[in-house]
Amino acid sequence: MSSLTTPTFKSPYLIFIGDADNTIDAKTGLGIAQWCPERVAGQLRFAGNPLSLGVPDMTLQQAVDAGVKSLVIGVAPVGGVIGPHWVAVLEEAAAAGMDIVSGLHVRLESLPGVETAARQSGASLINVRTPAESLPIGTGIKRSGKRLLMVGIDCSVGKKYSALSLAKAMQARGMDATFRATGQTGIMIAGTGVPIDTVVADFVAGAAEVVSPANHPDHWDVIEGQGSLFNPSYAGVSLGLLHGSQPDAIVVCHEVGREFIASAPQLPTPTLQACIDLNLRCAQLTNPAVRCIGVSVNTTKLTEADRGDYLATLEAELNLPCVDPIADGCDRIIDRLFTEFQ
Amino acid sequence: MSSLTTPTFKSPYLIFIGDADNTIDAKTGLGIAQWCPERVAGQLRFAGNPLSLGVPDMTLQQAVDAGVKSLVIGVAPVGGVIGPHWVAVLEEAAAAGMDIVSGLHVRLESLPGVETAARQSGASLINVRTPAESLPIGTGIKRSGKRLLMVGIDCSVGKKYSALSLAKAMQARGMDATFRATGQTGIMIAGTGVPIDTVVADFVAGAAEVVSPANHPDHWDVIEGQGSLFNPSYAGVSLGLLHGSQPDAIVVCHEVGREFIASAPQLPTPTLQACIDLNLRCAQLTNPAVRCIGVSVNTTKLTEADRGDYLATLEAELNLPCVDPIADGCDRIIDRLFTEFQ
Repeated sequence: MSSLTTPTFKSPYLIFIGDADNTIDAKTGLGIAQWCPERVAGQLRFAGNPLSLGVPDMTLQQAVDAGVKSLVIGVAPVGGVIGPHWVAVLEEAAAAGMDIVSGLHVRLESLPGVETAARQSGASLINVRTPAESLPIGTGIKRSGKRLLMVGIDCSVGKKYSALSLAKAMQARGMDATFRATGQTGIMIAGTGVPIDTVVADFVAGAAEVVSPANHPDHWDVIEGQGSLFNPSYAGVSLGLLHGSQPDAIVVCHEVGREFIASAPQLPTPTLQACIDLNLRCAQLTNPAVRCIGVSVNTTKLTEADRGDYLATLEAELNLPCVDPIADGCDRIIDRLFTEFQ
Repeated sequence: MSSLTTPTFKSPYLIFIGDADNTIDAKTGLGIAQWCPERVAGQLRFAGNPLSLGVPDMTLQQAVDAGVKSLVIGVAPVGGVIGPHWVAVLEEAAAAGMDIVSGLHVRLESLPGVETAARQSGASLINVRTPAESLPIGTGIKRSGKRLLMVGIDCSVGKKYSALSLAKAMQARGMDATFRATGQTGIMIAGTGVPIDTVVADFVAGAAEVVSPANHPDHWDVIEGQGSLFNPSYAGVSLGLLHGSQPDAIVVCHEVGREFIASAPQLPTPTLQACIDLNLRCAQLTNPAVRCIGVSVNTTKLTEADRGDYLATLEAELNLPCVDPIADGCDRIIDRLFTEFQ
């Protein structure tokens, strides 16, 4: 078992949204403000930007005075390119000693003024897309603590949202539970994690072992899933994550209306039963006792009336709690978890 | 489908074995001399080294005179470190304009004299462990031509040897078949390929698509496998390779006496039937018509008498041709391939 740990970002955060004025471009910032408000001091937006994360506006100087430790870039720039008006803010923040946390493709070190300012002030430049340098090979050796992994019929069907909802609901019920991030937005919310899809293939299972380290027997890691065993582009990532996570329980994530694999539209999505079966079969390699405890469904495309019928039918078919975490919360899945594991 | 291709090394080769005097250290050189003798001009070994690849000895000058295009490092140095007596040879070869092909961990560019000599002469420094820079994401879209992929109960059970044997036997029977390499030794034998386990996880299936590109309908790619779906360290690599290869047929590779997963000895190896079943089930995602056409067994640990009994029992159990390619050749598997596909 590896003793390697992943870096943890220093809070409180100032979330930079600049001139990004729509919720899609600013989804990382919105996610951070929603899921870890206790780590957020404020937001920095350019004059005239009507979009707000619902946290106090701050200048860099106000953030410094408030003890902010990290400027977190909460937006994706249009076209992926950072303009000079953004670079100036990052440079000033680094000069003031704030760590800069970025999930952008461009590496912060490649921005000359930013690199120099950080070097002079001692601030860290954290590129969330870059995995740790020395990840171990997966061992498959059982470690203590319990693990709940999200899996899915495809990419982008709500695995991160489901994991965050479940972790929060478990904590609210007094359980010792930790959200574990495997993608860049999740990492920025959790303040730590490994971007699993950027890891060299041989180390994916080892990276997953690092993400959810040994813990005390009653602790639950709630692990963000990636991809799908049924996605022909990324299934290898999903399998490495499944084996390295050694889940005691899985929740299958699904989106109503997702009939074809998004990145391979010639392929239909699997049935939920097929998805459950293959994930359990593969997961048994590193945890023979694995079981599926529920289905998390994004029902945004259904009317309120249809939603209830849809979930009731699914629940009868699969004999598992089927919920939309946005509409219903996750309590019925956690009830099942209690029944199965307490 | 990607039009990206992998680099091909220039032959003829001079194989460097230096002072490596045992067949384990020199296995890459031995493999190249065995499987692609038509590309080998000679070997370069230090004075007094009794190990020979069975090809002519040459000095660098003799190799230059004979039109050698590449010096291929056919050995792994003890402890992985290249000594100064090796570097001097590489530098001299690069200065003479030969490309240097290396499967070592150390990058050739990091050897100062070698880098300078290559820059001045225009020779290429080829690090086989380094994958192409811009691999595509896998599409899962069916491409023309036929593909035969080796899979296994574990790592290092004869997948490369089986693929090379099958490709050679198919060619001998007049079939249009190409060995496709996915590991460094295989790449040095084939002169081209992608080291699939060094690819960033998101691109493994895409890399596999590049390794066996579209071809004419009767052409067979015989693809070297990697890892195993039952190896908890590397199964993700195996699954990405399986999906990207879109095999029409698989051959399962096995080693008699391999009772536990080599890198995870707490886990038993799977039964051959379980290995066939899970590989077919997963492969169906990108090729629903996939079938298993045989089992390739390394029976080195059995006596000659026991070998026949063992293979006959296995064959009755699985209803598939079961051969040891070293002892028996691969013809019975190719017979099955003809029956199934012609």
